[in-house]
Amino acid sequence: MDRNLDGHTDTSHGKLRSVAFIGLGIMGGPMAANLVRAGYRVTGHNRSRAAVDRLVEAGGHAAGSVAEAVADADAVITMLPADAEVTEVVLGEGGVLQHARAGSLLIDMSTISPRTAVALAEAGREYGLRVLDAPVSGGEAGAIEGVLSIMAGGEDADFERAAPLFHALGTTVVHVGPPGAGQTVKAANQLVVAVNIQALAEAVVFLEKAGADLPAALTVLGGGLAGSTVLNRKKDAMLNRDFAPGFRIDLHHKDLGIVTDTARDTGAVLPTGTLVAQLLSSCRENGEGGLDHSALLRGVERLSGRARTD
Amino acid sequence: MDRNLDGHTDTSHGKLRSVAFIGLGIMGGPMAANLVRAGYRVTGHNRSRAAVDRLVEAGGHAAGSVAEAVADADAVITMLPADAEVTEVVLGEGGVLQHARAGSLLIDMSTISPRTAVALAEAGREYGLRVLDAPVSGGEAGAIEGVLSIMAGGEDADFERAAPLFHALGTTVVHVGPPGAGQTVKAANQLVVAVNIQALAEAVVFLEKAGADLPAALTVLGGGLAGSTVLNRKKDAMLNRDFAPGFRIDLHHKDLGIVTDTARDTGAVLPTGTLVAQLLSSCRENGEGGLDHSALLRGVERLSGRARTD
Amino acid sequence: MDRNLDGHTDTSHGKLRSVAFIGLGIMGGPMAANLVRAGYRVTGHNRSRAAVDRLVEAGGHAAGSVAEAVADADAVITMLPADAEVTEVVLGEGGVLQHARAGSLLIDMSTISPRTAVALAEAGREYGLRVLDAPVSGGEAGAIEGVLSIMAGGEDADFERAAPLFHALGTTVVHVGPPGAGQTVKAANQLVVAVNIQALAEAVVFLEKAGADLPAALTVLGGGLAGSTVLNRKKDAMLNRDFAPGFRIDLHHKDLGIVTDTARDTGAVLPTGTLVAQLLSSCRENGEGGLDHSALLRGVERLSGRARTD
Amino acid sequence: MDRNLDGHTDTSHGKLRSVAFIGLGIMGGPMAANLVRAGYRVTGHNRSRAAVDRLVEAGGHAAGSVAEAVADADAVITMLPADAEVTEVVLGEGGVLQHARAGSLLIDMSTISPRTAVALAEAGREYGLRVLDAPVSGGEAGAIEGVLSIMAGGEDADFERAAPLFHALGTTVVHVGPPGAGQTVKAANQLVVAVNIQALAEAVVFLEKAGADLPAALTVLGGGLAGSTVLNRKKDAMLNRDFAPGFRIDLHHKDLGIVTDTARDTGAVLPTGTLVAQLLSSCRENGEGGLDHSALLRGVERLSGRARTD
Repeated sequence: MDRNLDGHTDTSHGKLRSVAFIGLGIMGGPMAANLVRAGYRVTGHNRSRAAVDRLVEAGGHAAGSVAEAVADADAVITMLPADAEVTEVVLGEGGVLQHARAGSLLIDMSTISPRTAVALAEAGREYGLRVLDAPVSGGEAGAIEGVLSIMAGGEDADFERAAPLFHALGTTVVHVGPPGAGQTVKAANQLVVAVNIQALAEAVVFLEKAGADLPAALTVLGGGLAGSTVLNRKKDAMLNRDFAPGFRIDLHHKDLGIVTDTARDTGAVLPTGTLVAQLLSSCRENGEGGLDHSALLRGVERLSGRARTD
Repeated sequence: MDRNLDGHTDTSHGKLRSVAFIGLGIMGGPMAANLVRAGYRVTGHNRSRAAVDRLVEAGGHAAGSVAEAVADADAVITMLPADAEVTEVVLGEGGVLQHARAGSLLIDMSTISPRTAVALAEAGREYGLRVLDAPVSGGEAGAIEGVLSIMAGGEDADFERAAPLFHALGTTVVHVGPPGAGQTVKAANQLVVAVNIQALAEAVVFLEKAGADLPAALTVLGGGLAGSTVLNRKKDAMLNRDFAPGFRIDLHHKDLGIVTDTARDTGAVLPTGTLVAQLLSSCRENGEGGLDHSALLRGVERLSGRARTD
Repeated sequence: MDRNLDGHTDTSHGKLRSVAFIGLGIMGGPMAANLVRAGYRVTGHNRSRAAVDRLVEAGGHAAGSVAEAVADADAVITMLPADAEVTEVVLGEGGVLQHARAGSLLIDMSTISPRTAVALAEAGREYGLRVLDAPVSGGEAGAIEGVLSIMAGGEDADFERAAPLFHALGTTVVHVGPPGAGQTVKAANQLVVAVNIQALAEAVVFLEKAGADLPAALTVLGGGLAGSTVLNRKKDAMLNRDFAPGFRIDLHHKDLGIVTDTARDTGAVLPTGTLVAQLLSSCRENGEGGLDHSALLRGVERLSGRARTD
Repeated sequence: MDRNLDGHTDTSHGKLRSVAFIGLGIMGGPMAANLVRAGYRVTGHNRSRAAVDRLVEAGGHAAGSVAEAVADADAVITMLPADAEVTEVVLGEGGVLQHARAGSLLIDMSTISPRTAVALAEAGREYGLRVLDAPVSGGEAGAIEGVLSIMAGGEDADFERAAPLFHALGTTVVHVGPPGAGQTVKAANQLVVAVNIQALAEAVVFLEKAGADLPAALTVLGGGLAGSTVLNRKKDAMLNRDFAPGFRIDLHHKDLGIVTDTARDTGAVLPTGTLVAQLLSSCRENGEGGLDHSALLRGVERLSGRARTD
């Protein structure tokens, strides 16, 4: 326990000033830049050097390794593709746990499984680190503009400490429960989004097959109890069959894998969610993994004999 | 064709002044009163006399039969429970078609199947009547406050003629296509609403089983792409397990019967919609038909071993 | 009640000798011929004359109308495509009820809804007729060879009276309950068959995607708890993608319409059955309605990105 | 590669005489005894000593550790609960790979994921072992009577070598493809069994709700295309609501976890299979995990408002 704590000052209650940022991709890059802008000293590390260079241009600092990045940081943020990468970077040889300062705060903002998030929190505790899981929603645009939604799981005190930093990245910042809860909420979010898109896609095919005026119909639906953010944001994609991403089918498929695995772990029975997970998988198998998730419409069209060859 | 037209003035283009209102129930009663308030001469008929008396108190007129109600009306509105009642009142002995004036406008605002709506439009044409199907959404509150959404199917000219009347009843008034299209859009609306409620219900059980802070989680979901009118309006019902209607499971079940029948007629394949139709049916069979449709949550709890005995 | 009984001898307990057979199609033709072979005096009627001629060649008699066919018959068998045709032939102008002898036995062997079967039984009673619903399974081959399965609903005495006749048509003859029960059991049969085919289709795609030796795998499955008549009879169709009917998707789709309607009437919740009904509908919409129902495999292939262009 | 082969005689083509049997539970115990009976020298190891004692009584030999059991064996059979145990016993410290003789044959007869089976085959190859995955079906009775179905994945030569041994354990012995294919076929088997049970369960509730004579109805179904081994073997359980296992819901749930994970890996889309997986999960969450899998009927009853309190 607390193996790194011997002889060090416990910094676990101080204000966060220096941040190590691991993973400077489409989301992580602009998020790190926003932290620089908010006055944090940000040291970034990324597998490809170009992303690090962009951070340096924005006023950040470069680190050649995870170890170097985290050595003097008050907080370490990881923003990586999936469970495997996060596990490697945090638990692996030369990773965060081995090199971060005792009392520093590890904030994983990747979207991974609640189970892995809990495992990270437990491992962190053994090393004297505080850990939050804090996945985000809002996409690339939200990352750039600093208007992400952030759902954080972990201890109250740690959330309070991270709150100012979160507010440099997003506008909706909510503490949603104990370790893993951030990922649970993110998973629930992806569940609802997928099913709501599928509902809309089924309605679109239903309306077209029956000969209704689709734009007019969607206007009415949007004004009543059928209204949703999905309808507002994906309506044009569906009307125009323009499925440029946005959020890709492949990523949503990964996220529903987290949902169905977690549901199996916890005993939540999700008939609709698992069915839509299959339909996302079907789009992937039909070569649509790179399209926006609104392309679930393609799947309903395929089922209904309206496959398009364009 | 136009059997009633002989010798009569064709009134099919004039302004609507006098309205026969058949069906003065929870929805029809306040709608008829709103028409009185807007200056229409409204003659009402209803199976139970008490509802007619209320209309008279509100400034309307009483009719002892459908025939009497429609005899001098420019427009006939029907607001009845289901296909059987509408068919009886319109096509039956002593019904609207036999007694309405040539050129008058029949507006069926009930929620019935698109197939029946098309049949009514065809039958009306034979009798020299104009017919619109114009179901509504917005519930009892919307009816009372005159803020319903109205989705109308029929000819352009007929819609134009009815538009002022519609605006006395609702705020969103849209012409959504040819005869039957109003009902098609209403059905699509009910499809999306049911699936969105089910999505939310699955998320709620998922979140609770995993130990997340449910109110905080729903706040985050509401702020992002998972946001919806269903989430806004049904959140408290789900948090408090307070399923006082609102819109009853029984009625939504009836409406999804229209959805699935219409989908079979038109060849729309709706895997999620038909699954949710089964789940609504399941709630009914478990004695929850009289609860608000947000009680789909009860079904997910039952599946997940969280049946409540209260 | 018993409007036709006045003055007539009640023949409702005698041995059946003369049979009117309405509907001499793919199933009805060979069934009628088997009755001739078994010694019954069979008078046939069919919309197209060619089918009647074939019956006459086989030793039967021709009738130019339903009325003529049923006038002197001890039993009337109807073998027609669907509810509408049966209702028309039995209840319609010039139909069975108007012209059959009091005390004669009406046996509807078509596959129709239990609801319609019950309505026919009630209508028959008013006219002094006894009524059985007795749909069959076993297909064209079973009809020709006289090895059909016959599932009959109705009164005990009526079933006993019809039993010798049934044994001229089939080998499995079972009285399964009151009026309508025959159709209920036929519907249940079609439900199980469709779901079992879909299970096999999913297994086939699963095995192929994972690179197993499909013929060897199906041999193993057939030998254990996964074994089924569907597997025995449809294995070659699936291995060779040879979907010549057999029993067509279109007909099975019609039958699952009966299943889902009946389930809605009775409150049976069938998540798998309704899902497979959608998948049958999907095959139809993709132009496969004329293929054997084992072509549900095509649907799973389409979902899994293995659509074939042949 | 072939790290153990240096200096040893390659025994990979000889006749199998001595067998190490790891895992002497409900299935493994009687299987090991059957091998003794067939003339093999069987050395068994099991976590609990009592099972080893029973093997010794039957004529086998006891080993205190995996290392001891496998040291001189021509073949090593593992029959363990799930992926974790097999991985530990084979790959772990003191496990099969470290201690088995080069050229010996590892036969994993547990039911695990194809993915793990492939990983074991690859790991075995590095250690100079031959590996087969050879799960079984047929249950405890089949194990005792030596009439199991055995579905084996691996190289032709290895299968040929193991065939005599397999025939001492089962009657249906089939080589179904490359490494992992045995597990794939077992998974497909469990998929079909689960869906066929669910189909039957839905039919039972459908028939009862509609008032048909259930035993008579199931007799008819069994005689036609709806017939299946599930119907033959589970009919009484369903008629009598006697769900004493048999094969437990919990185990079938585990197996469908393998199915759905494998389907996600390979891109097979299984709408019905995943839905039934949810329904198995639902039975577990309702406290029915210890019942026979025919208790899927309970789930359909619960959905249909027929929950029993007994």
